[in-house]
Amino acid sequence: MANIAYPKGFIAGGGHVGIKKAKRDLTLIASEIPAVAAGCFTKNIVKAAPVIYDQNIINTGDKVRGIIINSGNANACTGESGMRDTLTMASEFAVLLNASPGEIFVCSTGVIGVPLPIEKISKGISAVFKSMGNSEAHGEKAVEGIMTTDTFMKTAIADIIIGDKVVHLAGMSKGSGMIHPDMATMLAFITTDAAINRMLLQEALSTCVDKTFNMISVDGDTSTNDTILILANGMAKNAVINTEGLEYEIFFDALLKVCESLAKDIVRDGEGATKLFEVQISGAISELDARIIARGVASSNLFKAAMFGADANWGRALCAMGYSGGKFDPAKVNMSFISLGGTLEVMRNGNPLTFSEDVAKKILSEREIIIKITLGDGQFSARAWGCDLTYDYVKINADYRS
Amino acid sequence: MANIAYPKGFIAGGGHVGIKKAKRDLTLIASEIPAVAAGCFTKNIVKAAPVIYDQNIINTGDKVRGIIINSGNANACTGESGMRDTLTMASEFAVLLNASPGEIFVCSTGVIGVPLPIEKISKGISAVFKSMGNSEAHGEKAVEGIMTTDTFMKTAIADIIIGDKVVHLAGMSKGSGMIHPDMATMLAFITTDAAINRMLLQEALSTCVDKTFNMISVDGDTSTNDTILILANGMAKNAVINTEGLEYEIFFDALLKVCESLAKDIVRDGEGATKLFEVQISGAISELDARIIARGVASSNLFKAAMFGADANWGRALCAMGYSGGKFDPAKVNMSFISLGGTLEVMRNGNPLTFSEDVAKKILSEREIIIKITLGDGQFSARAWGCDLTYDYVKINADYRS
Repeated sequence: MANIAYPKGFIAGGGHVGIKKAKRDLTLIASEIPAVAAGCFTKNIVKAAPVIYDQNIINTGDKVRGIIINSGNANACTGESGMRDTLTMASEFAVLLNASPGEIFVCSTGVIGVPLPIEKISKGISAVFKSMGNSEAHGEKAVEGIMTTDTFMKTAIADIIIGDKVVHLAGMSKGSGMIHPDMATMLAFITTDAAINRMLLQEALSTCVDKTFNMISVDGDTSTNDTILILANGMAKNAVINTEGLEYEIFFDALLKVCESLAKDIVRDGEGATKLFEVQISGAISELDARIIARGVASSNLFKAAMFGADANWGRALCAMGYSGGKFDPAKVNMSFISLGGTLEVMRNGNPLTFSEDVAKKILSEREIIIKITLGDGQFSARAWGCDLTYDYVKINADYRS
Repeated sequence: MANIAYPKGFIAGGGHVGIKKAKRDLTLIASEIPAVAAGCFTKNIVKAAPVIYDQNIINTGDKVRGIIINSGNANACTGESGMRDTLTMASEFAVLLNASPGEIFVCSTGVIGVPLPIEKISKGISAVFKSMGNSEAHGEKAVEGIMTTDTFMKTAIADIIIGDKVVHLAGMSKGSGMIHPDMATMLAFITTDAAINRMLLQEALSTCVDKTFNMISVDGDTSTNDTILILANGMAKNAVINTEGLEYEIFFDALLKVCESLAKDIVRDGEGATKLFEVQISGAISELDARIIARGVASSNLFKAAMFGADANWGRALCAMGYSGGKFDPAKVNMSFISLGGTLEVMRNGNPLTFSEDVAKKILSEREIIIKITLGDGQFSARAWGCDLTYDYVKINADYRS
């Protein structure tokens, strides 16, 4: 397991303060020294108080010291108490860190519309703070503290060389309501000891999020709480990355790798999911069309249900492409299903091909499936990820609050 | 059961020609004399051949004699054979009716991407034609012939007086994949003996469809095959409705009633559904915003799953409103759940209210639920309908082709 406190100068910890019945529900991440920060947030009109609070910090451009995250309660749709409780969380962690509240990000995830039991956080934070450290065990507790319906820990790391310095990146994420991610909270945190200009850090993060977290999403980041934050404290002592040259590319590629790993883990852990599938679109007339079409297929309920049943109902994929809003010529579509079980070509130049149902079943019974779709319209491509729609998705979501 | 051949001068019939294993799979509707026609069609880029064919007829503005519909195979994504088979269906019914192929609409519904077994239709059509008539029994066979995963027959009628004449309307529809209707085929057919100008008939149909069938839809009519057709043969002998006066209003109201009944039946029969819910939005800044917000809630998977669990997780409704794309001020939202079990107010002026979980369970365990949402932004309102997301939805769709 990768550890969020792996880069130089970071510590982390997680504990149980009583928001959930028994599992860890409070996570703290801190940098020894102030770090530059970048963030991407939900586009939902209804924003949880911590999202509004964090966006304000990003807008100031100030350096930050840490992040406090609770799970079990999203502090969303909580009226006037929402911002008050968010400020309390920031203030209490700031006091312990000897920082100011404006140097602390706050994130919440869990049930919507129930006031946060802030007194439990106030009472329990000090013990969690005292337990912080930078070992693997600390990282494990930190990731446990942000989980809700997640069934496994989602973490990733990357090491790169910039100049003559080793630079480290680490990330962790939570989220598993990925059948319709636009309604489920996704949180991701990335730490790095890279020295990098704040504007470039934001540009790198925004681009990576567009290619990864936003491609497991129907309408972008649209729950009330979705937040992705990165802290870069510069303790690797590399020459500060100030322009878009080679060093920036190296950093960007590592960040993309971390983001893609975290995003795919979220799909893999989709509520009730048994399969991960990747939709590959190429030959599109524009990158936007490629993205829209890829996401259309990855988020089709009917196609997802067919994947659960290992049913090669590719007509549903074509149908989803057609209503996605992306432009393409149906008469030029080629489509194949690919897995460890083999390759099944199902459509060539818009015409359906006959195939063996037994072979199809074998290929689609694998746990990871690629749907390769080649359009004949242009040079652009995109990838999107989805999971199958299963009985357990319904079970998990029919009575989430109980 | 209402009968599609109820208006004067219409006959109908349905039979089994072998596209499905045992159930009826071919339906014929005919008017004694040429009728004016109007239609609304899917907006999907990928259109089944019969949709393209029918749109051409509507575009000519010519009168028509009949409709031939098969179930069990959608004749969609079928490459070059698709249009050929559509023309064959039209021609064979036209010969029997002593009409031209351009006077016959063609509709298909069922599995996508498999060539239509046209020889079975050619072989069986004559027996179905001979069995046509205008009794209730004929109407019943006609509606059976268009059903796929439907669990009950969806029909409606209305009688109105225009001038000194009694005018009749009758309708039937199919479709039950309504968790995400944009991917499931919906067909609806309406007959009337009203005498009405073709342009006004199209205007009435388009407006009614926008307020009914399109409000059970995420993105409008977007499967490969969605089609709604109306035939008006004028045999009621009313003075032709040529302007938007009182007579038009009477006709419009009756058509709206028929469309709303057919549309709500489709939701009620949503695949695996156990509940119908109506989302009522009022106080919106524009009609478009009201419509977008209403549909956002009605099509949220997470909200649908909560309805299945009788879980008053209203935060999911607010969240869906927020990402719907419709404009509103979250601080001015009021929300209540209403059913035969009582009324539960859950949000006032954007603040959540405390409520008894037992009372909530009681109200949400009813089969029909209203979610009444009052915004504080303007004077516009809209309604949308949805059904709950259940285990059976997944079961039905995981292996539809088998």
